Amino acid sequence: MEQRVSLITLGVHDLARSRAFYEALGWHGDEVEETVFFQAGGLAIVLWGRAKLAADAGIMDVHPSDGFGGVTLAHNVRSAAEVDDVIAAALGAGATVTRAPAETFYGGYAGYFADPDGHLWEIAYNPGFPLAADGTITIPEFGQP
Amino acid sequence: MEQRVSLITLGVHDLARSRAFYEALGWHGDEVEETVFFQAGGLAIVLWGRAKLAADAGIMDVHPSDGFGGVTLAHNVRSAAEVDDVIAAALGAGATVTRAPAETFYGGYAGYFADPDGHLWEIAYNPGFPLAADGTITIPEFGQP
Repeated sequence: MEQRVSLITLGVHDLARSRAFYEALGWHGDEVEETVFFQAGGLAIVLWGRAKLAADAGIMDVHPSDGFGGVTLAHNVRSAAEVDDVIAAALGAGATVTRAPAETFYGGYAGYFADPDGHLWEIAYNPGFPLAADGTITIPEFGQP
Repeated sequence: MEQRVSLITLGVHDLARSRAFYEALGWHGDEVEETVFFQAGGLAIVLWGRAKLAADAGIMDVHPSDGFGGVTLAHNVRSAAEVDDVIAAALGAGATVTRAPAETFYGGYAGYFADPDGHLWEIAYNPGFPLAADGTITIPEFGQP
């Protein structure tokens, strides 16, 4: 299995609401078959009905809540000020800020918001993880402890 | 907010078990501060303790289950045979196959497995979504319905 991911699919309760949320943040999606695709670099972020997604994956959605799903997405930016800007924009688009931006143990600055279905985004400035001009990130080689 | 993602963090109950699972699939991770990073194209897939991840995001983990978290990851490949190969490799590494590979409505072929914490991976061959040589995917422009 190659070390890569093609799609991140977020199960949503109301496709139009979720699409409007991400478009309010400046994203542009393309919809087909009640599925919205956002090209994001070399992969796509996808919005699809949560019940359809569970059925497609062949599993029961036992606790169809907006609680913690065990997954977070991070969106790294180039400065602490940009963290504040994105969190403010998300708040304006209707997000819930679950952790206000603050300094981090690794010498950065980050906060989290939840989208309308509770999907969590960390907005982070991490000076140790360089971002290329095209937004791609490269994890540095850590020394052995 | 730019239309991109930097990290996908999977909350896990046993970091060593999860790292071993992905490395059995041929991945190479780098661990620091009890966090494992897998570079995956222009982003990284990260394994971190589920309780730590929830606390970092500022939310309660009300139903700390291995049930459906509302998110799936897809790994697209270049043929139906490769879908079968990856699903078989995942099964060999200890995954649970939640949907056996089968033909899809869009003329492709796909199956799903769950990792040791229930994180779902779809392994898909979709002839309509071209994969570049480096594994990046480009969503085609869909016509208006």
